Amino acid sequence: MTLSAESSVLLTDLYQLTMLQGYFDQGMEDTAVFDFFVRRLPRQRNFLVAAGLEQVLDFLEHLHFTDEELQWARDSGRFSGDFIDWLAGLRFTGDVHALPEGTIFFADEPVLRVTAPLPQAQLVESRLINLLHFQILVASKAVRCRLAAPDALLVDFGLRRAHGAEAGLLAARAAYIAGFAGTSNVLAAPRFGIPVFGTMAHSFIEAHDDEMDAFARFARAQPDNVVLLIDTYDTEAGARKVVELAPRLAEQGIPVKAVRIDSGDLAAHARRVREILDAGGLHDTGIFASGSLDEYELRRLLEAGAPIGGFGVGTRLDTSSDVPYLDCAYKLAEYAGRPRRKRSEGKATWPGRKQVFRRYDTAGRVEADTLGLEDEDPPGEPLLVPVMRNGRRLAPPESLEAIRRRLADNLALLPDELRGLAPATPLHPDVSAGLRELARAADRGTTTAASS
Amino acid sequence: MTLSAESSVLLTDLYQLTMLQGYFDQGMEDTAVFDFFVRRLPRQRNFLVAAGLEQVLDFLEHLHFTDEELQWARDSGRFSGDFIDWLAGLRFTGDVHALPEGTIFFADEPVLRVTAPLPQAQLVESRLINLLHFQILVASKAVRCRLAAPDALLVDFGLRRAHGAEAGLLAARAAYIAGFAGTSNVLAAPRFGIPVFGTMAHSFIEAHDDEMDAFARFARAQPDNVVLLIDTYDTEAGARKVVELAPRLAEQGIPVKAVRIDSGDLAAHARRVREILDAGGLHDTGIFASGSLDEYELRRLLEAGAPIGGFGVGTRLDTSSDVPYLDCAYKLAEYAGRPRRKRSEGKATWPGRKQVFRRYDTAGRVEADTLGLEDEDPPGEPLLVPVMRNGRRLAPPESLEAIRRRLADNLALLPDELRGLAPATPLHPDVSAGLRELARAADRGTTTAASS
Repeated sequence: MTLSAESSVLLTDLYQLTMLQGYFDQGMEDTAVFDFFVRRLPRQRNFLVAAGLEQVLDFLEHLHFTDEELQWARDSGRFSGDFIDWLAGLRFTGDVHALPEGTIFFADEPVLRVTAPLPQAQLVESRLINLLHFQILVASKAVRCRLAAPDALLVDFGLRRAHGAEAGLLAARAAYIAGFAGTSNVLAAPRFGIPVFGTMAHSFIEAHDDEMDAFARFARAQPDNVVLLIDTYDTEAGARKVVELAPRLAEQGIPVKAVRIDSGDLAAHARRVREILDAGGLHDTGIFASGSLDEYELRRLLEAGAPIGGFGVGTRLDTSSDVPYLDCAYKLAEYAGRPRRKRSEGKATWPGRKQVFRRYDTAGRVEADTLGLEDEDPPGEPLLVPVMRNGRRLAPPESLEAIRRRLADNLALLPDELRGLAPATPLHPDVSAGLRELARAADRGTTTAASS
Repeated sequence: MTLSAESSVLLTDLYQLTMLQGYFDQGMEDTAVFDFFVRRLPRQRNFLVAAGLEQVLDFLEHLHFTDEELQWARDSGRFSGDFIDWLAGLRFTGDVHALPEGTIFFADEPVLRVTAPLPQAQLVESRLINLLHFQILVASKAVRCRLAAPDALLVDFGLRRAHGAEAGLLAARAAYIAGFAGTSNVLAAPRFGIPVFGTMAHSFIEAHDDEMDAFARFARAQPDNVVLLIDTYDTEAGARKVVELAPRLAEQGIPVKAVRIDSGDLAAHARRVREILDAGGLHDTGIFASGSLDEYELRRLLEAGAPIGGFGVGTRLDTSSDVPYLDCAYKLAEYAGRPRRKRSEGKATWPGRKQVFRRYDTAGRVEADTLGLEDEDPPGEPLLVPVMRNGRRLAPPESLEAIRRRLADNLALLPDELRGLAPATPLHPDVSAGLRELARAADRGTTTAASS
């Protein structure tokens, strides 16, 4: 079998298929409405960033069972033959509303709403969460790095310790949305048009008998992008070699753009290296740092006045290491025209077709959100917009540049407190009177039916 | 572009390609030796489990640039034409030694060694780390769940919050290696032959007007696997409905295998539900629990005597949430017949072709490991074995059953202290005299050359 994790419809939880068999047996194909949302913000995040919609729409547009997948279903012996025949014709024909990527959001606010025949809306749950959760996670971490170092060049370096191939690729996308300059991950260039950055590894230095030789040869091989890694043996000695080498390279028209430091006390090394470079006349040669960085470390380095102009942020970004997952869910809100919700302890949800309305204060900053019903009209700007109808996108994919601008605009409207790295009192949406009433109605409906 | 993250050779860091251009320009194609290892064990792990080798070998066997990838390299303007022509013919022709999957290992011990022409050994770094790191991470977390609940049925439920598609798939494999009974992730069945498990979501209950109806219909649709989710509205009320329904199902020959609880105080609910089921004569109906579980929670529940026979362990497993990454590296140890190492602060590495020798005490338990040179002969069993020669596997892929057995055998030989969940004094390998001498020789070599 050669089914790809990225594209196989079997990348789902088995219960989706067993439930679908149940729905099929009972002819339950009425319209269902599901919401994807985050139940609670983690303490270390004052807001979250919508991301991953593009990949979800792509998934929905291409959803189908291949012959190989149908054969697996047959061979498994778990499903009826007529159900498998029905699976063969299954496509996603529903509607999607969503927060545009780059929109800032808070707990309980739907990021995406699916309106579709119940089996379709159910089947897509696992992969839809898988796609949205991860990109929201990384974009929401990356934007904190951006806020901590607003003027620095930030590059995603996380591929190697990202959790698998797709994580490495989508983390690059999420970081770019959040304002990173680019990524080390080459595939992000052909796939997303994201700028890629890269220099050399310690092994390049070590493979040469002489560090200076390695510098010179690398510079000649990559004359437009000479960033020299100087900490393989002794950081300051490495900097002095760069000073010694630079005039010879200059004669060949090759400037040393930057040096890179990847170990030790980055601030202390950067200060000493800056002195060495300046004393050697290399005022235009920048310092790029990497190694165990995150938003807290970036802030610490910049507050310490470290003369570092660019940072490679890797593992802690791509794994969102301080918050490696979000408490998110995809929940039924309506079926066959009736509101639905679960009331499980600590996990109760809001029913109905909802909208998020955002209000701004007189200074133009975000003041409050209201979680209401789509057909209510509380004050504020509605944030969820239609993006797919009858299984087809309503517009071509947005450019990443447009998404970056949206997030930058959203950030500018955020209260200062929420833009800080320290935990702030999170904004939590008000719940409209109409939505509260609908929740009570939904509870009466189930209670009555369940006690019958 | 439709390049797949899982299979594209461009899923790599740009610096691999810029270094390769440098090596190509200089004709540096001598044999290089690289080791993959973990620098330090995290405090929350007393040992790690080798996993992911199978995916690495597959990656190496299939390594090549497609026309589309070569075209990207050309269009990027970053590389010379003759270098790109050379890339077109590039294959992996090297040797690999590795710890067999399921082997327990400790800090500084090579998990895998690549011996190949320098450009090949360099190019594979990013993806090789990406593959090994994640499966080691999850297998090492999953085995702790197994140790915390040795007699329970454990099922991986983590797909939705795993970091992307491949993470969801490979986490299922890593958990199975560690002794889980299976996964909810359907794709793990056709891809790896792993048993899949699944029941129903709350939405199935909510889509019905009556909870009892939903139970009855699900049971008829999946008569061999009736596990009913009882916490959508009220857990104990749900259990009473199961008791009421069971005799009717029994008449149709359908047993209620288990009920599932996914919210609230799982131990307290499980006790009350057990009483309700027992009072209703459903002694053979088990209780399955899920929701925010990990090894600590499993131990707490079982120590509290919760009558739960099976657990779905999801998010915290697939993200290894308490330790979302390992401090691992892939480092040059030899080039052109000479030992190499970096001496960067806090990141110094051991040179040469190394072997891990494991000694056992008189009771047969692991006593100590020695990190030595391959051609040394310290006491102990050598753990690294050849698995690939000249780019070809030396044996067909191992069965997951064999890997599970190896890990179980390894666990049985581990000192009790290391098998506990609490942080223990980690075993750290002794370093042989030969290896220490080689490190000194490597340092002299570089120092001399670098000061010339």
